[in-house]
Amino acid sequence: MADIAIVGAGLMGTAVTWPLSDNGHRIRLVGTHLDREIIRSCLERGYHPKLRRLLPPAVRPYYVEQAAEALAGVDVVVSGVNSLGVHWIGRTLAPLLRPGMTIIAVTKGLEASADGQMRILPDVLASELPAGLRDAVSLAAIGGPCIAGELAGRRPTCVVFTSRDKAALHRLRDLFRTDYYHIWLSTDIIGVEVCAALKNAYTLAVGLAGGLLERAGGEDGAAAGMHNLAAALFGVSMHEMTQIVTLLGGRADLVPNLSGAGDEYVTAVGGRTIRMGRLLGKGLTYSQAVQELAGETLEGPFVVQQLARALPGWEARGLIGPDDLPVLRMLCQVITQDAPVQIPYADFFGRGAITL
Amino acid sequence: MADIAIVGAGLMGTAVTWPLSDNGHRIRLVGTHLDREIIRSCLERGYHPKLRRLLPPAVRPYYVEQAAEALAGVDVVVSGVNSLGVHWIGRTLAPLLRPGMTIIAVTKGLEASADGQMRILPDVLASELPAGLRDAVSLAAIGGPCIAGELAGRRPTCVVFTSRDKAALHRLRDLFRTDYYHIWLSTDIIGVEVCAALKNAYTLAVGLAGGLLERAGGEDGAAAGMHNLAAALFGVSMHEMTQIVTLLGGRADLVPNLSGAGDEYVTAVGGRTIRMGRLLGKGLTYSQAVQELAGETLEGPFVVQQLARALPGWEARGLIGPDDLPVLRMLCQVITQDAPVQIPYADFFGRGAITL
Repeated sequence: MADIAIVGAGLMGTAVTWPLSDNGHRIRLVGTHLDREIIRSCLERGYHPKLRRLLPPAVRPYYVEQAAEALAGVDVVVSGVNSLGVHWIGRTLAPLLRPGMTIIAVTKGLEASADGQMRILPDVLASELPAGLRDAVSLAAIGGPCIAGELAGRRPTCVVFTSRDKAALHRLRDLFRTDYYHIWLSTDIIGVEVCAALKNAYTLAVGLAGGLLERAGGEDGAAAGMHNLAAALFGVSMHEMTQIVTLLGGRADLVPNLSGAGDEYVTAVGGRTIRMGRLLGKGLTYSQAVQELAGETLEGPFVVQQLARALPGWEARGLIGPDDLPVLRMLCQVITQDAPVQIPYADFFGRGAITL
Repeated sequence: MADIAIVGAGLMGTAVTWPLSDNGHRIRLVGTHLDREIIRSCLERGYHPKLRRLLPPAVRPYYVEQAAEALAGVDVVVSGVNSLGVHWIGRTLAPLLRPGMTIIAVTKGLEASADGQMRILPDVLASELPAGLRDAVSLAAIGGPCIAGELAGRRPTCVVFTSRDKAALHRLRDLFRTDYYHIWLSTDIIGVEVCAALKNAYTLAVGLAGGLLERAGGEDGAAAGMHNLAAALFGVSMHEMTQIVTLLGGRADLVPNLSGAGDEYVTAVGGRTIRMGRLLGKGLTYSQAVQELAGETLEGPFVVQQLARALPGWEARGLIGPDDLPVLRMLCQVITQDAPVQIPYADFFGRGAITL
C-alpha cells in the first residue's frame, strides 16, 4: 500500500484512481486552478462531474493551494494535466519534489521550441525543475489506447508505461496493474510519446471523412458512406507517423502496436478529437470549429500547431523531402491558416509510382 | 477504351465496373453458378440486387455458360470470386486465357497446403493453369481499404494494386484509376495479399469487444463501452500481422499503411466480419455464430482455419516461438474447436517484460 498524489483532476488523471484504489493504495487527488468545481463536487458529494461517477473511497480530494500537503510523504506523483498545463505543473512540482520520486504523466502532446526542435512533454516538465533535481527524479508517461471513462468503469484496458528508468517502470507497473488495467513497459519514451501526440493530430484527418460525407448529403440511396476514405486516411497516417517517429529517434515498431495504431483507433471510434475533424470536413474553418466546440480542450490542433513550427526545420535539415507528410501538411494549413480541406490524394506516400 | 471481362458478379467484382465504366471501357460481367439470380436481375432490369444499384450502362451481363464468349478478345480479366472460388476460377479460366493476358483478383485470402505451407491466392489460381500458360500471363491483385458499396457509390477510395509484373501494374492503373478510385502500386504481392487476408482474421478479434460488452450488459450508467479493448486488439493485431507478413516474406511496412492498418480499420468499422466477432464475443460458439449468420460468406474464419493448419509447421521450423501470436492462437481455438473466447492479455506481445 502506498500514498500516491495526482495533480490534475480531469478525466484521465482521475480515471487512474480506480486501478490504484483497487490495489489498496491511498490517493490524493489535487485539482488545478481549473478544477475547482470538480474538487468541490468531489469533496461535497464524492462525485466527479466529468467522469459522471462516484470516486473510489480511497481518493481524497485537495484544492490546488493544498498541493504541498497532498505531496507530503508520497513517492509517486501522477501528472494529470493536459499539454497546456505542462509548464505549470513543472513549476508547481519543482519546490515539492524530492530526489528519488517518480512522476508519471498521462499528458499527450509535443512541444516545439522557438527554433522548431520538438520535445516530448516529460522533457518539457523536467525543464522546469532545478538542474539538481531534474536528474534525481524519474519521469514516466502512459501511452496506448485508453478512454478515461472506460478505465473508470473498469473496462479492459491495455496501455504502455514508458520511462528511461527501467526500475521505475517495474515499480509503477506493480502499483497500477489490475486484472482490467494491463500494462506493458517500454524504455522508448520518445517513440511512445510521439505516437501518443501524433494520434491526436492524425485523428483529425480521419474525422474529415465523416464531415465530407455530411457535406455530400450523407449516405446515398444504397447506404454508401465514406468509410473507405476514413480508412485510407487512417492507413496513410500510420505511414506518416512511422516516418515522424523514426526521424525524432523513436522506434518504428511502436506504430503497428498499442501506441500508434491502437491509440489512433480508439481516438477515431470513441474520442472527442474526431468531432473536430468532422466539423472541418463539413466545411467549417478551424476558427469556426473552435467556436462550435467551445469549452473543449483538444490536444490534436495543439499538436498540429507545434508540428507546423517544426516542419520547415525538418525540411531544411533534409530530414524530410518536400513531398513527404502530405496529410500532416494539409492539417497544418487547415489548423494554422484556416485553409479549406483538400485531401491530397495525389501526394499520398510522397507521389512515388511504386510506393508501397 | 478496352474490353474487360469480370468473372464473379458479387459485390466487389461488380463494384469495379464503376471506375472502369467511367473510364469509357466496355465491361463483360460474368456471373458464376452462384450468381445466377444476380445476372438474371442485371439482364432484366440492369439492377444489381446485392449492391442495390443500377449497373453502369457499359456493363453487359453474362451467365457462366457464356464465359468463353465473354472472354473473347479481352486482354484483362478481373477475378471477382471469393476465396472459396479460387480453384474453380483457375480451372474455368485455364482454357480461355491466352499468353499476354492479365488477371487481376479482388479476392482476399490465403490457402494452406496439406503440409501447412501458406500460398497467396493469385498463386493458387496460377496453380490451376497449364504450366506453359502460367508464366505467360500476368497475375495481379487488389488490396487496401475498399467497401464495395462505397466504390460503386463513387466514394473516395484508395487501394493498392499488386503484381510481380511492374509493367502490368502500370497498365492496370491506367485502366482503373479515376478521380475517386486512387491506386498505388506495389510489387510485393506476398505482403499485400497476406495483409489483405489477415485483416479479415484479426477483425474477428476486434469484433469480440462489442460482443463482450453486450455480454456484460452493455454500456454502464456513465456510458463506458469497450472501445479500449477493441483498440487494444486492433493494436496487438497490427503487431502480430507484422510478424506474419515478415515470416511469409512480405514487407513489414505494408502493415502501418493502406494494406494492413487501413484495410483492417475499414473492415472493423464498416464490414461484415465484425458481426461474426461480436457474436463470438457475446458467447456463441463459432458453430452457433455460423448458424446465426446463415448465408453470409465470410473470409475471416476461412483464413483462420488455414492459419491453424500452418501454425504447427511454423513453430516446428522455429519461425515462431510458443509464446508468439497469442491472438491468432485464440482465434484458431475459437474457430476450429468451438472454444469459448478468452482474451489472452497476459500473452500479448510474447509475454516479455519490456516488450515494446
